[in-house]
Amino acid sequence: MIRVGIVGGTGYTGVELLRLLAHHPDVELGIITSRSEAGMPVSDLFPNLRGQIQLSFTEPDLGQLAECDLVFFATPNGTAMRMVPDLLAASTRVIDLAADFRLREASEWQDWYEMPHSCPELLAEAVYGLPELNRERIRRARLVANPGCYPTAVTLGFLPLLEAGLVVTDGLIADCKSGVSGAGRKASVSMLMGEVGESFKAYGVSRHRHWPEIRQNLHQIAAQSLSLTFVPHLVPMIRGIEATLYAPLVAPADLDLQEVFARRYASEPFVDVLPPGSHPETRSVRGSNFCQIAVHRPRNAGMVVVLVVIDNLVKGAAGQAVQNMNLMFGLPETTGLVGIGLLP
Amino acid sequence: MIRVGIVGGTGYTGVELLRLLAHHPDVELGIITSRSEAGMPVSDLFPNLRGQIQLSFTEPDLGQLAECDLVFFATPNGTAMRMVPDLLAASTRVIDLAADFRLREASEWQDWYEMPHSCPELLAEAVYGLPELNRERIRRARLVANPGCYPTAVTLGFLPLLEAGLVVTDGLIADCKSGVSGAGRKASVSMLMGEVGESFKAYGVSRHRHWPEIRQNLHQIAAQSLSLTFVPHLVPMIRGIEATLYAPLVAPADLDLQEVFARRYASEPFVDVLPPGSHPETRSVRGSNFCQIAVHRPRNAGMVVVLVVIDNLVKGAAGQAVQNMNLMFGLPETTGLVGIGLLP
Amino acid sequence: MIRVGIVGGTGYTGVELLRLLAHHPDVELGIITSRSEAGMPVSDLFPNLRGQIQLSFTEPDLGQLAECDLVFFATPNGTAMRMVPDLLAASTRVIDLAADFRLREASEWQDWYEMPHSCPELLAEAVYGLPELNRERIRRARLVANPGCYPTAVTLGFLPLLEAGLVVTDGLIADCKSGVSGAGRKASVSMLMGEVGESFKAYGVSRHRHWPEIRQNLHQIAAQSLSLTFVPHLVPMIRGIEATLYAPLVAPADLDLQEVFARRYASEPFVDVLPPGSHPETRSVRGSNFCQIAVHRPRNAGMVVVLVVIDNLVKGAAGQAVQNMNLMFGLPETTGLVGIGLLP
Amino acid sequence: MIRVGIVGGTGYTGVELLRLLAHHPDVELGIITSRSEAGMPVSDLFPNLRGQIQLSFTEPDLGQLAECDLVFFATPNGTAMRMVPDLLAASTRVIDLAADFRLREASEWQDWYEMPHSCPELLAEAVYGLPELNRERIRRARLVANPGCYPTAVTLGFLPLLEAGLVVTDGLIADCKSGVSGAGRKASVSMLMGEVGESFKAYGVSRHRHWPEIRQNLHQIAAQSLSLTFVPHLVPMIRGIEATLYAPLVAPADLDLQEVFARRYASEPFVDVLPPGSHPETRSVRGSNFCQIAVHRPRNAGMVVVLVVIDNLVKGAAGQAVQNMNLMFGLPETTGLVGIGLLP
Repeated sequence: MIRVGIVGGTGYTGVELLRLLAHHPDVELGIITSRSEAGMPVSDLFPNLRGQIQLSFTEPDLGQLAECDLVFFATPNGTAMRMVPDLLAASTRVIDLAADFRLREASEWQDWYEMPHSCPELLAEAVYGLPELNRERIRRARLVANPGCYPTAVTLGFLPLLEAGLVVTDGLIADCKSGVSGAGRKASVSMLMGEVGESFKAYGVSRHRHWPEIRQNLHQIAAQSLSLTFVPHLVPMIRGIEATLYAPLVAPADLDLQEVFARRYASEPFVDVLPPGSHPETRSVRGSNFCQIAVHRPRNAGMVVVLVVIDNLVKGAAGQAVQNMNLMFGLPETTGLVGIGLLP
Repeated sequence: MIRVGIVGGTGYTGVELLRLLAHHPDVELGIITSRSEAGMPVSDLFPNLRGQIQLSFTEPDLGQLAECDLVFFATPNGTAMRMVPDLLAASTRVIDLAADFRLREASEWQDWYEMPHSCPELLAEAVYGLPELNRERIRRARLVANPGCYPTAVTLGFLPLLEAGLVVTDGLIADCKSGVSGAGRKASVSMLMGEVGESFKAYGVSRHRHWPEIRQNLHQIAAQSLSLTFVPHLVPMIRGIEATLYAPLVAPADLDLQEVFARRYASEPFVDVLPPGSHPETRSVRGSNFCQIAVHRPRNAGMVVVLVVIDNLVKGAAGQAVQNMNLMFGLPETTGLVGIGLLP
Repeated sequence: MIRVGIVGGTGYTGVELLRLLAHHPDVELGIITSRSEAGMPVSDLFPNLRGQIQLSFTEPDLGQLAECDLVFFATPNGTAMRMVPDLLAASTRVIDLAADFRLREASEWQDWYEMPHSCPELLAEAVYGLPELNRERIRRARLVANPGCYPTAVTLGFLPLLEAGLVVTDGLIADCKSGVSGAGRKASVSMLMGEVGESFKAYGVSRHRHWPEIRQNLHQIAAQSLSLTFVPHLVPMIRGIEATLYAPLVAPADLDLQEVFARRYASEPFVDVLPPGSHPETRSVRGSNFCQIAVHRPRNAGMVVVLVVIDNLVKGAAGQAVQNMNLMFGLPETTGLVGIGLLP
Repeated sequence: MIRVGIVGGTGYTGVELLRLLAHHPDVELGIITSRSEAGMPVSDLFPNLRGQIQLSFTEPDLGQLAECDLVFFATPNGTAMRMVPDLLAASTRVIDLAADFRLREASEWQDWYEMPHSCPELLAEAVYGLPELNRERIRRARLVANPGCYPTAVTLGFLPLLEAGLVVTDGLIADCKSGVSGAGRKASVSMLMGEVGESFKAYGVSRHRHWPEIRQNLHQIAAQSLSLTFVPHLVPMIRGIEATLYAPLVAPADLDLQEVFARRYASEPFVDVLPPGSHPETRSVRGSNFCQIAVHRPRNAGMVVVLVVIDNLVKGAAGQAVQNMNLMFGLPETTGLVGIGLLP
């Protein structure tokens, strides 16, 4: 059994981790911390967990956490980096669901997250936890930076095209749409149902922290300069991300793009390439760790359109974290992740 | 392994049965029928099942169905009754998720369902599949009438009060609210999102087929005449039923109603009595087989208020059907039903 | 032209008042205050008002407000009462959309609103602004207490029955459902779309501030003791209230309840009694000042069921306030309130 | 007074026309037809119109329609073209809200709408009713082809860039998102709330009838060959379209795109260019005839991003039709169209 601790368990990522870990056959959930809710039974805050999780929230305590085999951080950005060095020193492994270890350059991290990085020396060691890209390195990692939700969807969508060199890399466009749970569970006016229900909008066009993360991923894959336009949008629903990706093709007109995608993901347990002509729906992966992808070439012209859906809280956060844990601890990659999407 | 067939698998009850049975450790799914979609892989219609269910829909064939140990009917009302006698004769057991065997009197059934019953002789044998009421009879049943969604919620909410004789039985009120999946998956104008989104209404105040079913249940429990006012409402969400129940109390002012409920359901695996003062939310049981209940006595006055939530497609349909199957085949009652509610 | 000021214009009631007043032919909007947003153009906060309202928010200033003919308070409870005496002294009339002047007894107000009332001497003078009940007194009022949203719906629904003495007054039940805008526009976790979307729940069963307000109204009408059970619920939609009301009938079985309602509201411009058998939908009155009502007597038994819908922000708040203003200033009651419900 | 008839008034476009025309000061609504609902009062089908519209639906009758000054067709594609020649011959003017007269080439129309055009000789005369593009021709038109909803949003968004020659015309991308009312009010499984609620998807990537319409518009403006990729998506809300447009810039880096848009639309009554950095929300124009636009140049790089919102039923259908009527009959263009967006 893997003894697991969770730091920061009161957000949507936290409750989703709890849902997945509660039935994971190889996990013993030892600690779940929350400064604000210390002392409260977890299932009082999240009644879906009644009878499933007996723990109460506790104040974060480094000593107790260091007794875990693995600690997940489901905290705001900038929290994990202050505790990770001590945990690693105590031989506790870490998966950070926030952004602290996602960017490789400390200076870039500081630019985008507006604070200095407190342990830049770990950035080189941290492994970016996208199994489809870095599976072997994840297996050996002490510290995994769990990817952002948008970066997961966009990277999986562009990956086969970039690896095969089929698109013009200076014209990449990612038009992404997310449900509201992506904004987290914190008091705000802007995410009230009265504000975001029954409405749709773009946001963060000029600046979004997932842009450098996506660019870093795509740049690593393409191994050449590229230009990415990324526009996120807010959808009046709770869960789900859909990414519609555009790129000018340099492939020959008769190249079978469907085959390119199918082959690239043939052995991936959680990436499902849909049949030609498909339009994936976010509901098909609601609550599941699957990523469904369709590739189109409208009117057989020079633009490829890739459609990607994930559940932002599962493959885009907690599910991918469990997938990474499975890899790090030598378990079958799909352990505890077999839940089927809740449709309707 | 129980060899299972499903008749009518293209509706919401059908896909939910498939989701639950796909991972049930004691079930082998043999046949799923649909006249309209015969030949289509199940996962083409329901992409959440890709990689989970390899079957295709087939034309219903009595011979093939009779080779199953158990057949679920997830069909419109009036379909099961035409096939059940032959299946029972072939020693195949049946759980009907429609209403064909819910009412005990053939004449009453005809009044409410507007067609003659084709096998009234089976109505006495059919067991009403509410485990909390009829567990032992279900274990021995050949034919189970799986309860309606509203009747499940309302009956579980009134049950402890009626059994203990604590309320005036001629003033029972059930104000019920359901998500739109309760209306099924069939072409209609009235259930378009453009019609029912962002709006709320009562419906069927003067006549709803669940009224006689609820009354029959409550009458059986109370063993005296009673009067029930039942008003269903449509909520702009997909899954979930909330029932707010009212009854004048005849209990002494100092009776602990919380204790009455807690004791009655202490050993029930799927009925969860919440702490005093709770307000259950439908999302806490989304996708799960739990029923959460809270009991209130506002201002310590003479009216009891019971709040009940279930997922209409799980405890209100497919999940309860699996619970009944488990009982009928001597399995632990919770087998395959451990999924946690998807929150948020 | 009526010179109008609005105190507290950043909430949902405020923006709705602005929407209605922007095109009111007899209103000149002079001041709109907000401490938090002082200096910001109103249309920066509410882009639907671009080109319609040129004002910016200002700090509340008693001297400026006192130059208005009428001041609306769209503030949290307890704000208006601190400014109203000075405004009345300056001959400025007031409509308070909060609760400060709704309850007649200062001690009861203090019990429910948990602060002492700062001008209890005005409670007797304040007129409860439900035109269907108090039209003539509103015409002459200096100070109008605009009704709460639930009390408007429930009072209009029970009014004809209580006036005619047709129901048992100690068994009144109001099962009410509201969209999320009723909770206002303030930062909170509990009203995030991630928390309240796709879910339904009761709340405040044991204590809700609208209970004493409704009881006071019904008591005034019935002129006898009564018992009211009031259960509010939260619907995953933005606008709208539906109230389902229950009462045991003392009327003869052949009494035409439809006729009772139709006659009572025959000359009311904003109360629309639907044909027999109707089920009003909140969307039919979305954005409009209408109240639609249907009366049912299920199975011709002893319980009457009344269904009422309003838009909580219009007839339940800003629209009713404008209706009261029209009465107070001798204008046709429907001036500026002719907007048609936005369906779909 | 303009005597107006409406053919096909039972859909969402029809009820929206009725809402707008009910209060139009220069319109007398004479006839509204529906084969399926002939004889039913309009307000029985659409209770938001109770007390506002006294008409009942009638069977379409050419003689009666020919007595109108103007007939709106809110019918399925292929209906208007069978009646328009006779109406024009009777000096009745026509605005077709369907697609019969939107494409200039009969052969192209036949390709996309899969039936032969019955009066191709009128295609040259029909004026495409986008006032911002064709205002003067609309004033003189007998027959106006009211634009599609997506084409309205996309054309208004690209118009200033194409007129000024600022973008590479063979790399235009329109990523569009629509609420469900765009699919109309007809019985279907695919638009049930159970199917499209709480989910998001692209559709029609390889083929959508608005593609040739948009391309025709952009081609007319750009006066050169162009390539357009158009991907529509379905949003789980009722009203609203958001279009996110992308194009590679050929403009100098210091060109002020904001100024280009502001100047182009300075005198347009219904196109509102938002301040720099804005993200328009569909709710800001809910129920109103406004189009709100923002222009971005992320990271000052070579790609322009234009964000456009309209209400698909107003500026995208019925409101634009009334705007066209106002132009055709010499009225102020904004008559009857001053309604403010319903927010929240």
